[in-house]
Amino acid sequence: MALRSLNQLRTFRNTLILLRNRWLTSRMGIVFGQGVSISLSARFRSNQRGDIVVGDDTLIAFKTLFLTRDHRSGDVKPIRIGSRCFIGGGSTILPGVSIGDECIVGGGSVVFTDVPARSIVVGNPARVLRGDIEVGRLGRLKGADENTRVMYR
Amino acid sequence: MALRSLNQLRTFRNTLILLRNRWLTSRMGIVFGQGVSISLSARFRSNQRGDIVVGDDTLIAFKTLFLTRDHRSGDVKPIRIGSRCFIGGGSTILPGVSIGDECIVGGGSVVFTDVPARSIVVGNPARVLRGDIEVGRLGRLKGADENTRVMYR
Amino acid sequence: MALRSLNQLRTFRNTLILLRNRWLTSRMGIVFGQGVSISLSARFRSNQRGDIVVGDDTLIAFKTLFLTRDHRSGDVKPIRIGSRCFIGGGSTILPGVSIGDECIVGGGSVVFTDVPARSIVVGNPARVLRGDIEVGRLGRLKGADENTRVMYR
Repeated sequence: MALRSLNQLRTFRNTLILLRNRWLTSRMGIVFGQGVSISLSARFRSNQRGDIVVGDDTLIAFKTLFLTRDHRSGDVKPIRIGSRCFIGGGSTILPGVSIGDECIVGGGSVVFTDVPARSIVVGNPARVLRGDIEVGRLGRLKGADENTRVMYR
Repeated sequence: MALRSLNQLRTFRNTLILLRNRWLTSRMGIVFGQGVSISLSARFRSNQRGDIVVGDDTLIAFKTLFLTRDHRSGDVKPIRIGSRCFIGGGSTILPGVSIGDECIVGGGSVVFTDVPARSIVVGNPARVLRGDIEVGRLGRLKGADENTRVMYR
Repeated sequence: MALRSLNQLRTFRNTLILLRNRWLTSRMGIVFGQGVSISLSARFRSNQRGDIVVGDDTLIAFKTLFLTRDHRSGDVKPIRIGSRCFIGGGSTILPGVSIGDECIVGGGSVVFTDVPARSIVVGNPARVLRGDIEVGRLGRLKGADENTRVMYR
């Protein structure tokens, strides 16, 4: 392998993420704001521009799944994710779901219904565990170390 | 890249799906009926012919998981999926589960128990949300646009 | 393809599993005991040595997900899996979770809280379904055929 150091690997990954984000925007029609962080293993089922809109400074963790077509009716129902959210690893967002600003979706959750701003949801089906939370960039709770965010990609 | 147009990409994918379906039948021993549509990212854990049987005109969406071996007892417990079902994205079907005809399994569901015909199940563990539904080919509710089915592959 | 027989394929896979286990230990810092069996499709989010500790004779099935960083606080919370456990296909283990010895985590479960020794947990969030179970190597219930364990990789 030509990857001799971890640094080279990191540069390679960052390039990959950049290319992938460009592809998500241009081909898949995902609309996303400034400063989002989207895992390479996140999967989007989008058909046209605007089906999935993601706000600023939101983090979408690995192995997440976004489905926009409601099979039962055949309609596309757009997904909206607010700003400063954290969508946890392995979670699934179903068609038509709107997630408000500053929300945390726990790992492995399956979200069927809209999530009000500033709440934590978990479970399948996902239910509100806590409301009125206060988060910063990438859905980090106050006091969480900003520097560690790179780990989540 | 040699893929100059979306059409070429589509032809390539259709060939891939064809080859994969042949492999599922011959190697994995999945038995499936006419007109099924199985996502390339669906995963089957089958050991011998007939462990997994899928009826006609059923759609199996992406990132689904079919497990036939009950670890606790070591037995293989076959999975049966009826005709005109829709198995939603990211759902998991556990060993020994029978799903009746014309059922809809919601995205992200984990199905532990048998599902009676013509019902919608969701959640983990999956529970019946609605019964007596009426669906057509690929588990589409009446009125859903047939032409959009290609999206689900 | 050069893979002319199933035997060659098996040798190839065993080598792959060996290399991958070495990589998990040396690079990802996963600590595991004797006789563990870890699926190639299991995914670990570990940052340093000891974040994830797996006991002897435990089986980790395919498409499982282990997350060690609690996003909300930014802390790493280690995951501990006991000996002779079975972590079922498609399940997710969240940060800080300790699973006792001789436990069975059902397929597709999402584990948020600690699991007492000798119990079966299922669901999202995972709840104890049964306690005081008696299992052998790789979390097999007494009487289960030892020879079939290779199927789970």
